[in-house]
Amino acid sequence: MIETGSGDAADENCVFCEIVAGRIRSDKVAEDASTLAFMDIDPGADGHLLVIPKQHSADLLSVSPEDLMATTLAAQRIAKVMYTQLGAEGVNLLNCCGTAGWQTVFHFHLHVIPRYRDKSKDRLELPFEPGMPSDADARARYAQLLSAVV
Amino acid sequence: MIETGSGDAADENCVFCEIVAGRIRSDKVAEDASTLAFMDIDPGADGHLLVIPKQHSADLLSVSPEDLMATTLAAQRIAKVMYTQLGAEGVNLLNCCGTAGWQTVFHFHLHVIPRYRDKSKDRLELPFEPGMPSDADARARYAQLLSAVV
Ligand SMILES: [Zn+2]
Ligand SMILES: [Zn+2]
Repeated sequence: MIETGSGDAADENCVFCEIVAGRIRSDKVAEDASTLAFMDIDPGADGHLLVIPKQHSADLLSVSPEDLMATTLAAQRIAKVMYTQLGAEGVNLLNCCGTAGWQTVFHFHLHVIPRYRDKSKDRLELPFEPGMPSDADARARYAQLLSAVV
Repeated sequence: MIETGSGDAADENCVFCEIVAGRIRSDKVAEDASTLAFMDIDPGADGHLLVIPKQHSADLLSVSPEDLMATTLAAQRIAKVMYTQLGAEGVNLLNCCGTAGWQTVFHFHLHVIPRYRDKSKDRLELPFEPGMPSDADARARYAQLLSAVV
């Protein structure tokens, strides 16, 4: 078990820690001192992959700023290569935090999803229909609640 | 016009540059030297906001590593506050790059979307149905294509 300053520890029940340790195989795309990128086994589009910090943290709330930055920069590098190597015409970065935010593996990860106009390669649909009448009062209220603390 | 090393320039036709300049109003949530956060006018869930670098860049491909890091760290700080101030039960971070990736404003931005079990506050649906039979050969092929260059 690796103890860390933040109290996060490698979890032998964490499938991504097992991938980092090499005890579960993955289709590795890239690796550096602190991050690992490997193919998602349940892709939303052809070439969908995940970038994770090697150090365990559960989610966006607990990942260290250093690991968050390293993971995001690795995701940007890989996104660029998706255009040249896979013919991607767009990319999405997605983090899912919490069960209510669709998180299923509780080791922080960024989805990097190449996008294509060819629907045979791309199964993603917009997660919500834009064009709801916007509510200026609600926007002002949420902005005030958040800006008081951020 | 602000010329930058990367060739990105404030664009007077860019609505987010106009927001940074204060010529278009927004519901501001947070601001630091290089980033600005404000409410999305077309929210997918209550409290949905955007974090942008003040410096113009079109998208994930062209944003500088410094602006990408600053934007991501600001998004993490705000995500934490969404739990305490808005009662969020989850969060999504989303970047849309390219028209094929749902980008509509070509000034790099991260969506920070608080998530709720209460569907009256949360209109998001999973962008794809997980559980497709996974194709190990395809995963290995994509990993090889990408890892050759990343
Ligand atoms: Zn883990
Ligand atoms: Zn702009």
